[in-house]
Amino acid sequence: MKIGFIGFGKVARNLVRLINSENITFLTSAQNRSENTIKNMEESDVEILDTFKEVATLSDILISANSPNQALDVAVKYGKYSKGIYMDLNNISPKETLEINKHVNNFVDGAIIGKIDSANPILYLSGKNLESLDFLNDFLEIRKISENPGDASKLKLLRSMYTKSLSAVLIESSEVAKNLNLEEEFFDILSLTEGEDFKKSALSRINNTKNSKKRKAEELEQIIDYFENQDLTMVKASFKKLNR
Amino acid sequence: MKIGFIGFGKVARNLVRLINSENITFLTSAQNRSENTIKNMEESDVEILDTFKEVATLSDILISANSPNQALDVAVKYGKYSKGIYMDLNNISPKETLEINKHVNNFVDGAIIGKIDSANPILYLSGKNLESLDFLNDFLEIRKISENPGDASKLKLLRSMYTKSLSAVLIESSEVAKNLNLEEEFFDILSLTEGEDFKKSALSRINNTKNSKKRKAEELEQIIDYFENQDLTMVKASFKKLNR
Repeated sequence: MKIGFIGFGKVARNLVRLINSENITFLTSAQNRSENTIKNMEESDVEILDTFKEVATLSDILISANSPNQALDVAVKYGKYSKGIYMDLNNISPKETLEINKHVNNFVDGAIIGKIDSANPILYLSGKNLESLDFLNDFLEIRKISENPGDASKLKLLRSMYTKSLSAVLIESSEVAKNLNLEEEFFDILSLTEGEDFKKSALSRINNTKNSKKRKAEELEQIIDYFENQDLTMVKASFKKLNR
Repeated sequence: MKIGFIGFGKVARNLVRLINSENITFLTSAQNRSENTIKNMEESDVEILDTFKEVATLSDILISANSPNQALDVAVKYGKYSKGIYMDLNNISPKETLEINKHVNNFVDGAIIGKIDSANPILYLSGKNLESLDFLNDFLEIRKISENPGDASKLKLLRSMYTKSLSAVLIESSEVAKNLNLEEEFFDILSLTEGEDFKKSALSRINNTKNSKKRKAEELEQIIDYFENQDLTMVKASFKKLNR
């Protein structure tokens, strides 16, 4: 079996590391790639072809793992050459997955949860014929959500909606606690019910969010935009909070 | 040592159960008490005096554990007879604790975290001379916050601010997930990072909050009222959300 990559960054590199089998050949191309990316390819167990068109044509599974803003272009350009499964692993919106679905055959929408460079990332998948991807379970945990392309990225948005709103709540309540000179006690009292790790995980969420406030606010804006018909009182408040 | 109770409900009954020592006598009175409360007294290891005035006069530690709306009345009426510590364990606001502090000597503000009828409730205390209460540590966990009466109830409000906002976030995100037919997957994907118990605890918070929406909204209103000078974007959104 041949698995081809369009884009060879962190995701591709780690999938090659995880999916370690004699029966699988990985393909990619150095066409228009940066020196750094080519170095990554050369250090990985992957066959480097001249063009991405060849990669697309020869692959049983073609994986697009670039940057979100290139995802649609790549699909339009190479999707038509792919006869097998076309899997998008870019962090894109559900709307974009549906757009991509129009340009490729056998589309599968994937979302990686957890760190891809960890020992146990989980791959959420939605799309038709997912059973043909069951073999991946030998190498990393996969969860099949549904036959509908877009469900994996919807789920990723839902997760992001929860975690970002939670961070906004943590920022607000810990700041009030700090202003009352009761910050330590605040973490301490909540650890009793929320678990021993509460303080550590709360501070990590707070710092993480504060350090990339603008990006998190943009992501919340995308959620508000995509789920426009839902009651988003808390998400909107979180956006307001982070956008200060 | 004598510990007196004004009010003999669940809190008093359980403190008598927990603080089990030959050196301690518990006092209370049946004055104007309901049949049910008198039955509780009779089933507990407590001496029943004729009046609460006597209880207040004789106690080294006088504990007010009534209902929040009686807390101030009790303090005004009996605080003047108490020579030892006057501990308020009613679920009252920081403003009320400061009001009570004007009417009693040696005021200690207490907040019980966890279920008082469990094996290990924790008693948060603020006020002067807390070292005279160290002996309580032999019977239940106590945490001394500060010398300032009101800090224990402030801390309770901060805790409530966090947990209620979190519930509002959970209600909102799980409802959007449900509308997208991805509710199970939503809980599943969050369990990966939030811990195995996520679904169970999330559903318990959601149901709990929905079943007493009006009361929770009122409590949020009190928080908004008390912390009026703080940034309460998320708390205000939670109030709006629950007040629907």
